[in-house]
Amino acid sequence: MDNPIVVQYELTCKDAAEAHKAAKDITYEQTVELPVDFPLKEEITNCITGAIRQIELIDNERYAAEIEYAAEITGWQLPQLLNILYGNISIKNNIKIIGVEFPRQFLDKFKGPNYGVEGIRALMGVYGRPLLATALKPMGASAAELAAIASAFARGGGDIVKDDHGLVDHSFCSFKERVLKCLEVVERAADKTGRRCLYIPNVLAGFDDIERQVEFAVGHGAAGILIAPYLIGLDTARYLAANYPIVVMAHPALTGTNFHDPRHGIAPSVLLGTIFRLAGADVSIYPNVGGRFSFSLDECRRLNNALRWELGGLRPSFPAPAGGMALDNISEMAALYGPDTIYLIGGALHSHDKDLSVGTRVFMDKIAEYFSEHIANPAPKSGTAVSSCDINAGGITATNRPNIHIVFGDDYRWDGIKPMVYKSGGEFDFKDITRHELVGKNGELADFDLRYFEIGQGGYSSLEKHVHIHVIICVRGTGTLICEENSYVLRPFDIAYVPPLHVHQLRNDGSDGVFGFFCIVNHLRDKPLMPT
Amino acid sequence: MDNPIVVQYELTCKDAAEAHKAAKDITYEQTVELPVDFPLKEEITNCITGAIRQIELIDNERYAAEIEYAAEITGWQLPQLLNILYGNISIKNNIKIIGVEFPRQFLDKFKGPNYGVEGIRALMGVYGRPLLATALKPMGASAAELAAIASAFARGGGDIVKDDHGLVDHSFCSFKERVLKCLEVVERAADKTGRRCLYIPNVLAGFDDIERQVEFAVGHGAAGILIAPYLIGLDTARYLAANYPIVVMAHPALTGTNFHDPRHGIAPSVLLGTIFRLAGADVSIYPNVGGRFSFSLDECRRLNNALRWELGGLRPSFPAPAGGMALDNISEMAALYGPDTIYLIGGALHSHDKDLSVGTRVFMDKIAEYFSEHIANPAPKSGTAVSSCDINAGGITATNRPNIHIVFGDDYRWDGIKPMVYKSGGEFDFKDITRHELVGKNGELADFDLRYFEIGQGGYSSLEKHVHIHVIICVRGTGTLICEENSYVLRPFDIAYVPPLHVHQLRNDGSDGVFGFFCIVNHLRDKPLMPT
Repeated sequence: MDNPIVVQYELTCKDAAEAHKAAKDITYEQTVELPVDFPLKEEITNCITGAIRQIELIDNERYAAEIEYAAEITGWQLPQLLNILYGNISIKNNIKIIGVEFPRQFLDKFKGPNYGVEGIRALMGVYGRPLLATALKPMGASAAELAAIASAFARGGGDIVKDDHGLVDHSFCSFKERVLKCLEVVERAADKTGRRCLYIPNVLAGFDDIERQVEFAVGHGAAGILIAPYLIGLDTARYLAANYPIVVMAHPALTGTNFHDPRHGIAPSVLLGTIFRLAGADVSIYPNVGGRFSFSLDECRRLNNALRWELGGLRPSFPAPAGGMALDNISEMAALYGPDTIYLIGGALHSHDKDLSVGTRVFMDKIAEYFSEHIANPAPKSGTAVSSCDINAGGITATNRPNIHIVFGDDYRWDGIKPMVYKSGGEFDFKDITRHELVGKNGELADFDLRYFEIGQGGYSSLEKHVHIHVIICVRGTGTLICEENSYVLRPFDIAYVPPLHVHQLRNDGSDGVFGFFCIVNHLRDKPLMPT
Repeated sequence: MDNPIVVQYELTCKDAAEAHKAAKDITYEQTVELPVDFPLKEEITNCITGAIRQIELIDNERYAAEIEYAAEITGWQLPQLLNILYGNISIKNNIKIIGVEFPRQFLDKFKGPNYGVEGIRALMGVYGRPLLATALKPMGASAAELAAIASAFARGGGDIVKDDHGLVDHSFCSFKERVLKCLEVVERAADKTGRRCLYIPNVLAGFDDIERQVEFAVGHGAAGILIAPYLIGLDTARYLAANYPIVVMAHPALTGTNFHDPRHGIAPSVLLGTIFRLAGADVSIYPNVGGRFSFSLDECRRLNNALRWELGGLRPSFPAPAGGMALDNISEMAALYGPDTIYLIGGALHSHDKDLSVGTRVFMDKIAEYFSEHIANPAPKSGTAVSSCDINAGGITATNRPNIHIVFGDDYRWDGIKPMVYKSGGEFDFKDITRHELVGKNGELADFDLRYFEIGQGGYSSLEKHVHIHVIICVRGTGTLICEENSYVLRPFDIAYVPPLHVHQLRNDGSDGVFGFFCIVNHLRDKPLMPT
């Protein structure tokens, strides 16, 4: 198998024969989902089913099994990656994923963290020490109360203040009000301290709302968002990270069923480390050793490595251990985690002084004792001065840039826009029609494309149907729209709408010269079909 | 607390005092995420933190604890529901969710299954017996090979043939080709058998692609889809079910970490039953008792009840036990599960005869022995004769219908389109400008809106910025676009693009009469901001 994905499983089995059988079952269960004795074609057993690389005894009744999978079977997408890794076998017992290695070809399909450790440092202008972060809480506090906490933390010199991951768009504290108030206070604090403190809102919402919330936050100057990939869906997380120029902090909510039993689940270093980084986490929050949850020191170390070590061309991410940190163990934290870490501290900040800005200051000073801080000017935030290319959902090439002004000239032509052939591919019948791509193919951030078509006398477009709709504005001459069993005569500035799956055609059957029209379509759209 | 959500936990604790402490911890951890001794305002302890209703010993070191939560804290959305139910405590040990009850007010926010048991029966025209389903596999087979299996199953009288949940849009078997071929063969079989067999494609794709795939399948006549809510995100599943007129089969991939240990996780009846039904599953697939996975008989019974019993106004769903079924245990299955069940059978169908249609026929006959089948004419499929309103993602009102032809008349006016005030709300400054909503507000399935604006001499639009972009086509008179520090003179058929977050304004400073222009914007867009 060329360039496979290699997964390391830990299997709890009585003996080597049982371990081998369990591994073989996995290779079929996770791919063809058939019994291992099912007669399969050779091309399937060669290229589709997983292949055992090696199995070794690592402890009493514990075996490490390495299985490789063809990267193609993932369809190069994260939901199917999760499926191949652990979809069905999650329902079986005593199979744990302890490691995964991806070929470069697979990693290159993913953008990964937008900022990573170096990008966040440049954004903050802070080098040589860990960053200090805290969470706004409790749920039930007003936006003003939460903003007051953010303000005190920022004035005390803290680096990142995030929403608690349970703060959503509540009737008693709306997302928008919280975001506006908190962004305002951290900006105001920055004016005084000369240092930047990032406010990172929690974006936890349904499929319909989540992208709106990100747009709102980014549009109002937020440099990042907090997301819980297992609550919103791993690929929703990836999509948001890939399409907005933001710092992404990932929260581990709902992942814990993987970590309950050492013989079962996906290890923290794989799930909260490699996979969350692949999905674009600049920061991965996890329960610190010694806190109120249960990760071991070894788990924490492996997780830090998965976040920081080389992973194709993906930027290294910050680990953000949470819980169990206090003034008197910062020296241990420093020795254990090193500088490229975000300390996420809650209660301990409050316990030091009634004024949170004082508690924050005390912590910052303590951190300074163990590290050599270097301070630079913060880099510009993308969120506030974003270029049109930065927040696009796709389709941008480095060479194309949107034009702001496309000047109309003689004979229905625009400067810099060349008429193109109407359609390539031979199955459709059409005649004497040209296409001008005006907006949408040059990295414009539009959900639609604007084109101009011209049909000569006697010409016509192909008779076709598709799920996407057309909006047509006639601007030159006269033409006819055929739409299912009806036909409509279009004159200048008449507008037409072609509903989904309606068989349609544009025709110039008249003697009024050229028929020209704008046609607006969804940017993402299906390919036309021949009518049936 | 009025109309709370009530969650039943099973806690593994040494004694009653420890169980009480553990329950109290949960009430804080899942809401305010603070230690239980943290001083909170009374309104927060009354309305935000969970409240213990009762705790009782149910077995040696096992306690059942009932905790109620205010429904408001869910923000009425599923990601936050998962978060409140099990977000952080998933990372703790020995806490299992064994039941959940929702107030009607909460349930009413969710559409639930589109068809449910009765709707699917009407669609099939089959009453009085379980339905027989199978899965297309293996991954690696071509679309034609898979379609041949679908054809044989349909010709044998089977009811539902679904993709295996590992079939995605693969380079070696594309989603579109598979869907078109399989839909075609089941239609052709129906012409012969006079019975309907549903082909249900697997929709497992990234955030960017998944809705396109559903549109394609529905647009080509698929009556339903297979989804794995934990792979794509629970709310992505809900969104697809709520916005497309489809039968939704839910697959349990990746949920199994909840079921590994009886002391931990969310019980199958809650997760695959109540929660998947809430998210819109018409059918919930789960590992049958006695199959190669590990659900107990009691689990299966509870799960069936959660799917079929009353749940507010939500339609009852079909349980679809998979695995472990063969000809010789259909009598047991019949007694155990009753008629409102979908038997999902794989290998056993093939083992009976080389011709799958024969094996299917044998199974159907066997099922008929134990049940009294009633056959009716199948109901029309929504998917094949979809109106433009049926597959829209939102924004449609019952009274508005899209116009196909909007006729242009005198003085730059369109039939049936009234000029409107440019903008309501007093914070923005603008002058002598009107707006005509041409396309997008009447249920058109467009990702964009088309409007026409006119500015009188000396008039101007508000100076503003937003994340969404503008595309402008000048069609009347002459005007000026201010965009950041630049200005552009727009003459008829000039086109302009305003990039994200660029401060802009349209002005008519000339003496050339009215300045009129089309303006195209994304249908989903953020609200304008004052420039800062």
